[in-house]
Amino acid sequence: METIISSKTKTVIISPERPFTIIGERINPTGRKALAREMAAGNYDRVISDALAQVAAGAHILDVNAGIPMADEPAIMAKAIQIVQSVTDVPISIDSSIVAALERGLQTYEGKALVNSVTGEDERLEAVLPLVKKYGAAVIGISNDETGISQDPDVRFSVAKKIVERAMDHGIPKEDVIIDPLVMPIGAVRYAGRQVLHILRRCREELGVNTTCGASNVSFGLPARVGINSAFLAMTIGGGLTSAITNPLEAEMKQAIMAADVLTGNDENCMNWIRANRKPAKDGAAEKGRRRRRRG
Amino acid sequence: METIISSKTKTVIISPERPFTIIGERINPTGRKALAREMAAGNYDRVISDALAQVAAGAHILDVNAGIPMADEPAIMAKAIQIVQSVTDVPISIDSSIVAALERGLQTYEGKALVNSVTGEDERLEAVLPLVKKYGAAVIGISNDETGISQDPDVRFSVAKKIVERAMDHGIPKEDVIIDPLVMPIGAVRYAGRQVLHILRRCREELGVNTTCGASNVSFGLPARVGINSAFLAMTIGGGLTSAITNPLEAEMKQAIMAADVLTGNDENCMNWIRANRKPAKDGAAEKGRRRRRRG
Repeated sequence: METIISSKTKTVIISPERPFTIIGERINPTGRKALAREMAAGNYDRVISDALAQVAAGAHILDVNAGIPMADEPAIMAKAIQIVQSVTDVPISIDSSIVAALERGLQTYEGKALVNSVTGEDERLEAVLPLVKKYGAAVIGISNDETGISQDPDVRFSVAKKIVERAMDHGIPKEDVIIDPLVMPIGAVRYAGRQVLHILRRCREELGVNTTCGASNVSFGLPARVGINSAFLAMTIGGGLTSAITNPLEAEMKQAIMAADVLTGNDENCMNWIRANRKPAKDGAAEKGRRRRRRG
Repeated sequence: METIISSKTKTVIISPERPFTIIGERINPTGRKALAREMAAGNYDRVISDALAQVAAGAHILDVNAGIPMADEPAIMAKAIQIVQSVTDVPISIDSSIVAALERGLQTYEGKALVNSVTGEDERLEAVLPLVKKYGAAVIGISNDETGISQDPDVRFSVAKKIVERAMDHGIPKEDVIIDPLVMPIGAVRYAGRQVLHILRRCREELGVNTTCGASNVSFGLPARVGINSAFLAMTIGGGLTSAITNPLEAEMKQAIMAADVLTGNDENCMNWIRANRKPAKDGAAEKGRRRRRRG
């Protein structure tokens, strides 16, 4: 089960047999007034610094959203993609609910993009899937449809299944569909975590597709959100989640992802973990000395 | 699926529908030379302070191990149990590989104890299970036998199944058997985490029993062990683990357990999480003010 996403020069493979894929969420003006104002005014300095910071922190793919009310979203999307591709080599997830913005993004993008996203409504499927096919992209399928977001995980799974089948009808191979099981806030929906684990399991075992989610939504409204998000990432990676749209700049969440890679066996010989957590040689020796003294 | 453990005055119910059960691991002289020396000399001050600290930090059950080379383990076990029961009201897990020490512990203990542990060897089963039955205790069954620890999780599961069946033959109800899938160090056994998740799932779905493990073993030999252990706890709780023998004094691991309880829906209304992470009212107001200013 391998989903391949690429830029001009870099390929990312999303797979349950590889380290978890981090899709950096920061380039998104929703709820970020300064960023929205700047992007609308043609100032992309913050887009560039957010792109560079996320890549430095370990993002494998960058999500780019240009959803600014009253602005020309397709034009801003194209510009943002062009600029991000000029300063980094990581692939991009083109994030919009506006079909014209997805299309402009796909036209501009160099490589095999990830389209974020399509839902299970027939109208959306018929608008987005032809574009995904035309540009040879991959797509995130979100498990809700005309009837809304079901609290029955088996209903959400059936929407996911419909999306995969419809994509295949359009000639898109199922490895190019990544299912988002939809993460509800746990403070409002008591069994939101169990729902996600159940859908992930069915996606893995019955559909054989990769999965993603917006990991931070689960903690909405609760204190110490990063603690909840970190545990959620470890738990869902154990449950088969293969990527997430998240913020790699949150050190605790990044650490949970790296630890989860160790625990799934996907950080071979624990090399990434050891490299990230190795103490400088000098400190290591001092620590060893202290331990020896304590023991004596 | 409810396993009931009790002291004279306090009952703990281990169940997948309740908050995760923390079995405090600290009262164990293995690798703690000062504690071993003191216990052998009849000084239980550190046992008392370890008991109180772990209960204060959230331990629901206290593991008591008296394994000191060359010492009279049955006598020390009896004394340690007596003293721990005199200063706390939490139930005890009587931890020994020596049958005589388990028996003296069971004789001394007031309440329904947890016996830690029995393995799948016929000889051990026939020595330990009659004691568990005689004293009406519950028991931890560890999934290895005369052939050692299999790296095939289905073989380990078959040992777990044998222990449950043999316990039932002895008149011990299966809810009084808690399976330990055995956690191997991930630095040495690449798929140790996947093994554990696989065994947990079969224990839950096919045997319908509660589970436990020594959570810290997984990170043996790696740097930043607490990060690995915390992710492992979140991941395995998501996979159905219902208790662990661990150190509640490690704040990061305690936080991962509490977050996992939120995510499984077992921290009702997230009350434990909110209580533990609530800022004092004054700070909260100040923070709100700061946010309002930032927004403006």
